[in-house]
Amino acid sequence: MLRGRTPYQNLSRISRLGLAPRIRINIPAQRVQSLSTSHSPKSQSTSAPKHPTMPLLSLETVNPATLKVEYAVRGELAIKAEHYRDLLRTRKNDHGLPFDKVVTANIGNPQQKGLDQAPLTFGRQVAALLEYPQLMTLGKDIFPKDVIQRAQELYDEIGSIGAYSHSQGIPFIRENVAKFIQERDGFPSDPSQIFLTAGASAGVSLILNILISSPNSGVLIPIPQYPLYTAALAQHSGTPVPYYLDESSGWSTDPAGVERAILDAKAQGIDVKSLVVINPGNPTGGILDALTIKALLGLCEKYQLVMLADEVYQSNLHQRDVHGFTSFKKVLRETQSPVPLISFHSISKGVTGECGRRGGYFECANVAPEIIALIYKMVSVGLCPAVSGQVGVDCLVRPPREGEESYALWKKETDAIHAALAERTHIMVERLNALPGISCAPVSGALYLFPQLHLPPAAVRAAKEAGQAPDMFYAHALLDQTGICVVPGSGFGQKEGEAHFRLTCLCAGVEEYVDKLSKFHIGFMEKYSGQ
Amino acid sequence: MLRGRTPYQNLSRISRLGLAPRIRINIPAQRVQSLSTSHSPKSQSTSAPKHPTMPLLSLETVNPATLKVEYAVRGELAIKAEHYRDLLRTRKNDHGLPFDKVVTANIGNPQQKGLDQAPLTFGRQVAALLEYPQLMTLGKDIFPKDVIQRAQELYDEIGSIGAYSHSQGIPFIRENVAKFIQERDGFPSDPSQIFLTAGASAGVSLILNILISSPNSGVLIPIPQYPLYTAALAQHSGTPVPYYLDESSGWSTDPAGVERAILDAKAQGIDVKSLVVINPGNPTGGILDALTIKALLGLCEKYQLVMLADEVYQSNLHQRDVHGFTSFKKVLRETQSPVPLISFHSISKGVTGECGRRGGYFECANVAPEIIALIYKMVSVGLCPAVSGQVGVDCLVRPPREGEESYALWKKETDAIHAALAERTHIMVERLNALPGISCAPVSGALYLFPQLHLPPAAVRAAKEAGQAPDMFYAHALLDQTGICVVPGSGFGQKEGEAHFRLTCLCAGVEEYVDKLSKFHIGFMEKYSGQ
Repeated sequence: MLRGRTPYQNLSRISRLGLAPRIRINIPAQRVQSLSTSHSPKSQSTSAPKHPTMPLLSLETVNPATLKVEYAVRGELAIKAEHYRDLLRTRKNDHGLPFDKVVTANIGNPQQKGLDQAPLTFGRQVAALLEYPQLMTLGKDIFPKDVIQRAQELYDEIGSIGAYSHSQGIPFIRENVAKFIQERDGFPSDPSQIFLTAGASAGVSLILNILISSPNSGVLIPIPQYPLYTAALAQHSGTPVPYYLDESSGWSTDPAGVERAILDAKAQGIDVKSLVVINPGNPTGGILDALTIKALLGLCEKYQLVMLADEVYQSNLHQRDVHGFTSFKKVLRETQSPVPLISFHSISKGVTGECGRRGGYFECANVAPEIIALIYKMVSVGLCPAVSGQVGVDCLVRPPREGEESYALWKKETDAIHAALAERTHIMVERLNALPGISCAPVSGALYLFPQLHLPPAAVRAAKEAGQAPDMFYAHALLDQTGICVVPGSGFGQKEGEAHFRLTCLCAGVEEYVDKLSKFHIGFMEKYSGQ
Repeated sequence: MLRGRTPYQNLSRISRLGLAPRIRINIPAQRVQSLSTSHSPKSQSTSAPKHPTMPLLSLETVNPATLKVEYAVRGELAIKAEHYRDLLRTRKNDHGLPFDKVVTANIGNPQQKGLDQAPLTFGRQVAALLEYPQLMTLGKDIFPKDVIQRAQELYDEIGSIGAYSHSQGIPFIRENVAKFIQERDGFPSDPSQIFLTAGASAGVSLILNILISSPNSGVLIPIPQYPLYTAALAQHSGTPVPYYLDESSGWSTDPAGVERAILDAKAQGIDVKSLVVINPGNPTGGILDALTIKALLGLCEKYQLVMLADEVYQSNLHQRDVHGFTSFKKVLRETQSPVPLISFHSISKGVTGECGRRGGYFECANVAPEIIALIYKMVSVGLCPAVSGQVGVDCLVRPPREGEESYALWKKETDAIHAALAERTHIMVERLNALPGISCAPVSGALYLFPQLHLPPAAVRAAKEAGQAPDMFYAHALLDQTGICVVPGSGFGQKEGEAHFRLTCLCAGVEEYVDKLSKFHIGFMEKYSGQ
């Protein structure tokens, strides 16, 4: 059904026309069918239609845009990994698998079972008190005083966290976000321009829904990208316009390359609306400097583009002294740029890692009041983001300060998370680069590596015979043999003929894990070498 | 900008063509501009664009579908009410308003500040323990044993609630939902066909996004309706096909009228895809009996429609012995109907009232595996619903049982909520019907009244002069003079020339509140009588 219909069809249109041969990207369509076969939940016979011929709800009748949506991070490999995990649990002695645990390296989910990142105590204590406010009294010997004080302050502002809040987010928390941004950038931030969201994804999807006014609306996305962008573009029937990051220089962003992508797209008649930047990069870990940011804002001004800055990894910096984070908002104000900017942040990443709370925010700058009103109207239909996620945002932007009772523990916990992530990243890059047929660019931030595979021709042929792209073939073999689940590079986009994979740097026991990966890789390379 | 462009443009197309003169509905376009004027947050001068002529992000360039979205429950009256609330707080002595508090009767938000519905203790205690699992030990003298046991069981299944869960929802909780449904209906329910969601709204919007395959896709909605449906149809560019509930018989649903609406729409060339039923009704409070449900399923089979059953008020029944709740799923299985059914439930309503957690679920029945896979793929892009909302669903479907330590308190709390709601509803209906120029149909369930206003001609003229629909004019006057915020009937849909308003039955101090409303109403009627 979906053969040949991918969210990248507009991209291949560009390359078919020969105008931008280098920006063809290699992302095979993941077939919807593959999700519905062996690894998807089966319906019981009681749920089966009595008249199976009834055609009214089928892939032929649904919204074709939804068929084009792909999200590899939770795609066929993740589903297979879940299936293996089920097998290991339910058939302890006869699962028949060559491994005894699944290693989830496909998703940046720090608090997942089997990983070792515990939640920050301060935020959880505050959350517990807001769930059950009687604890502020009953538990006064259990909780630090500053925690009770913070919870009381939030309770006085919010009331019950079981009530819908203001659709844009609790005003008091938006004020605290504005103070956080102001302190970070040295420029004012306005709470009325801030929207609290259910994670960054919900905000990105909403903004793209608003920006895409026709299927001809183009949005510039980095390649490789986080697949939320292509998924949301497919869902809202927009056109992705890829620009390529430079792997040879640590996945840097070249404004001249972005400009070429804009011109190529315009030459195709695409109405380029917006430029997406992920900084620090996902999956690349690259960090932009102020000069590059300034140049990108200059392109937005020149070509009338809305800048979307995905800055959810802003506190995941492995060498904080060397590679500091510079926000788009700061450069926007420093250069007095008129470009509309929407920047996204989240509690799911950083050292908070509270993915399950679904909390985040976006800040609008240079956005007209009627557009703010339109965004407000759209979010009001969904009523409000989960209040516990909003409380999580408050704890992100207002951690304990020096001198407060909870500060020492908070400092210890966050330092340990930063150190573990930097150490694991360093070890993994070193060890991957020591393997034959793998090259891994150095990474400065975020939670991932995106190494390139240099596979022998026989492996590429074997993949072709299996009907898979080489990176997908490799990732399946890795999962089948070791239980390690990664995401093939095709899920993020890569140059034609290349093969990468993304893996997180979150797994505990990194040496053992890389041992297993190395052993598999060497075996895989040997198997297909010299054929 | 939006003049004449409403989400109901397709409806007015039907009525312009004269084929269905009675199904013209009276919902004036709420202008986006009105959201961005006096009552919306103002941007600080630091956020103002330096080049105000930059046209790249304006109402002219955004997705026109988003401009058509309307959601009156949080529309201009709610924004004005918030403005008044701010004034009362910040200018205590010179606010200049003729009231000293705002009464939020516009939204079913039981735990909102100023209302009196406290959260159920059991669910909050479980949630607090999951937020801060150390409390299972530290607080063992504070929490009942069954609460600690439940929290431990959930913790063993889920791990940290700060981790992303399965995109479809935590498998263990889906199993518990299936047991709940099975116990309710007496028919099996399959966890693999259940999706946990961020409230019912997120599920409805997703399913409509999938069903609407072109702007010509029609979805039958009751009039009056909950405006989520028209908002989601506008956002996803589908066509609402109204069918009218019968006010004279307590807002009953007449299958013959639904069939006429289907035929009228088909005669217009509309591709009718789905039938939405809200049971118990919002805003009407009507409850469907099994015979009507059977007839509606019969229509779905005859005309190949997907049935969407919004059953979020299933436990809000004012006379539980007289008007029991019958689920669509039960009748579907009893009649062995082949119709695809998706039914929605939520933790925001009922006696739980946990709106701020954003938790809910939908169950699919007779839905093909490839469509289940498609839904899974779509929800996976958003990663997962907030885990604390999922835990809320678990507590909804697994309340304490007789014999457990928490049962007595849970029973006392839920009985009190049921009784208060039934009593307030009864008092309000009686007292509204005693007023001149108001008639209020009896209601059997849900949280609202939807009385009709019979306004004197002079009031209608005055509304016209003010450029407002009569019900909007009335609702503004009510808010301006008393601080009581209701939603005009036009936000839900009503027959042309009619005027209603929706108000919740959640406000504490019902006598005082109805006194205030009555005094206003009598004054309003007198002002415009005899002119």
